[in-house]
Amino acid sequence: MDGVILTPLKQIYNPKGNVFHAMKKSDIGFDGFGEAYFSTINKGDIKGWKKHKKMVLNLVVPFGEIKFVIYDDSTNEFFSVKLSQNNYQRLTIKPNLWMAFEGVGKNNMLLNLASIEHNINEADSIKLDDIIYKW
Amino acid sequence: MDGVILTPLKQIYNPKGNVFHAMKKSDIGFDGFGEAYFSTINKGDIKGWKKHKKMVLNLVVPFGEIKFVIYDDSTNEFFSVKLSQNNYQRLTIKPNLWMAFEGVGKNNMLLNLASIEHNINEADSIKLDDIIYKW
Repeated sequence: MDGVILTPLKQIYNPKGNVFHAMKKSDIGFDGFGEAYFSTINKGDIKGWKKHKKMVLNLVVPFGEIKFVIYDDSTNEFFSVKLSQNNYQRLTIKPNLWMAFEGVGKNNMLLNLASIEHNINEADSIKLDDIIYKW
Repeated sequence: MDGVILTPLKQIYNPKGNVFHAMKKSDIGFDGFGEAYFSTINKGDIKGWKKHKKMVLNLVVPFGEIKFVIYDDSTNEFFSVKLSQNNYQRLTIKPNLWMAFEGVGKNNMLLNLASIEHNINEADSIKLDDIIYKW
């Protein structure tokens, strides 16, 4: 989908505990650093829909498993992917796409490396039922 | 300790899963974005010592509990702190300080928001026994 990039990330084995890459400033999809935050999502719960006007999202799932669904209202197109340590990729989402995500594992957390600081006026939010998708 | 900053971070309650702040570019301790990566550490294991010549570390513990020990070889001074969701703070470490960390919980993970990209020539590493500290 236009405006969506999936980038496989390295996991580096260490007997004391592995290292998981998230993002370098030289990476594809990096569009400046504004803010980093974690969001957790309970199993079976869904957060969304939200559409950012300016923010580029770079999403990584360090533990658990999260299903992301992206909807482009200009083409009526959906894209979905499940991310976890087993499918360890960075999901870059450019502005003007709707996004929602569901907790799949028992405990689930994402990191968003956002290109700008959070600003409530920069994003539109609508109810889950406002975009019909078979979760 | 000079060169070390602890900054309390917000946790925002959400019935579907809480949000945990990590860092904004306008925050104290932010010194540019170079790379973000996760490091896990097994219970009872210790990674260290490492001293960066240029990198500023910004460390957050999104799950588990990690004990950080910082040693300033110019003053012979130690600093230690345990971070977790219960003591949810960001630990900023300026260059030229030795750092080691121990896994305290069952599963432990840190996020480092580093000011420059990883470069093996930019950091010195020594064995754990090379700095005497009673873990």
